[in-house]
Amino acid sequence: MRSTLSDLEKTIHQRRTADPGQSYVAKLTGRGRAKIAQKVGEEAVEAVIAAMAADREGLIGESADLLFHLLILLADLDVPFDAVLDELDRREGVSGIAEKAARASDQA
Amino acid sequence: MRSTLSDLEKTIHQRRTADPGQSYVAKLTGRGRAKIAQKVGEEAVEAVIAAMAADREGLIGESADLLFHLLILLADLDVPFDAVLDELDRREGVSGIAEKAARASDQA
Amino acid sequence: MRSTLSDLEKTIHQRRTADPGQSYVAKLTGRGRAKIAQKVGEEAVEAVIAAMAADREGLIGESADLLFHLLILLADLDVPFDAVLDELDRREGVSGIAEKAARASDQA
Amino acid sequence: MRSTLSDLEKTIHQRRTADPGQSYVAKLTGRGRAKIAQKVGEEAVEAVIAAMAADREGLIGESADLLFHLLILLADLDVPFDAVLDELDRREGVSGIAEKAARASDQA
Repeated sequence: MRSTLSDLEKTIHQRRTADPGQSYVAKLTGRGRAKIAQKVGEEAVEAVIAAMAADREGLIGESADLLFHLLILLADLDVPFDAVLDELDRREGVSGIAEKAARASDQA
Repeated sequence: MRSTLSDLEKTIHQRRTADPGQSYVAKLTGRGRAKIAQKVGEEAVEAVIAAMAADREGLIGESADLLFHLLILLADLDVPFDAVLDELDRREGVSGIAEKAARASDQA
Repeated sequence: MRSTLSDLEKTIHQRRTADPGQSYVAKLTGRGRAKIAQKVGEEAVEAVIAAMAADREGLIGESADLLFHLLILLADLDVPFDAVLDELDRREGVSGIAEKAARASDQA
Repeated sequence: MRSTLSDLEKTIHQRRTADPGQSYVAKLTGRGRAKIAQKVGEEAVEAVIAAMAADREGLIGESADLLFHLLILLADLDVPFDAVLDELDRREGVSGIAEKAARASDQA
């Protein structure tokens, strides 16, 4: 299994208190939660647009940006990425049929 | 290292061609790329809102939803999740200072 | 000049306190600001997707949805739509060149 | 009735073919529909965040930005703003109860 995201999570935690002149993470974190959240929303919009343009390279880059900023946002609320993976594991424990039923209200 | 996301990616690939009456992935995929992209955008908005409300449990759930739908979108363009992780690894190979410089234009 | 938006704003203000079983505005308002904001974000994502799909009819419908929910959100913060129009008028008072300079930092 | 939005629509149509060095509208239009759509999505995210922060001044500014870029996007698909107002008028012609029923599927 690859450790990319957990390594990145550790790096982000370390950089949060770094010199904002040297670290993007520190600089963005210093601008506050609203700015971090804004970046998550913006990168998602860019991923949506890349997908609609069938731009595979663009989608790869925007997805990377989206994950990176999502990790920064999770760190800002002191939420470990493992909690998100736990939630995904929990859902996958549900069978296909149950999953469908459980998600029925999301399918608008 | 946890295999949650790579396992989920495999499951999504299997479910894409399943019975839409039995699988959310198959049903959403059948509705077309625009609907998948829409879900990615919507879940990102919900994650943003949960973060702004300082709702940690909500952020965990919305982040899980966001990752789940992002994997469905990547699958729809036949982009392996590894390509996104490769891109993140490539960026992390850059030093903190260089990373900052490289990202300067993203900091609007 | 058409009074569509100012009429709609008045209707929304009246409906906010209506029976949630009879009025969508009352029902959504009752669910709280986060839900209203979520709808604004979702409708914007749908407008973006319609535009990328070159779906003119879709863009008309999603733009109407976006404006409708934006008016509900403004009402929820007790911001008159006129304040938004005042801000647009103020910006248009600036010349083309100055406007460009004033907006330079938004062009990332 | 105020003519702010219809005046702005006219101005945008005129500026689309202006010197991109002198006009933000011309510059953004020249970058393509995906960039215009991206700005609509970004400004909506910023409006959502301002609302969640109960930042009334911020919401006014972001709503103005959102409307401005929505008009640029409509112009890019050659959709008159009147078509959006027509759609809103059509919906308002429906009674409160019918409107609620008609929108039931949007209330997820």
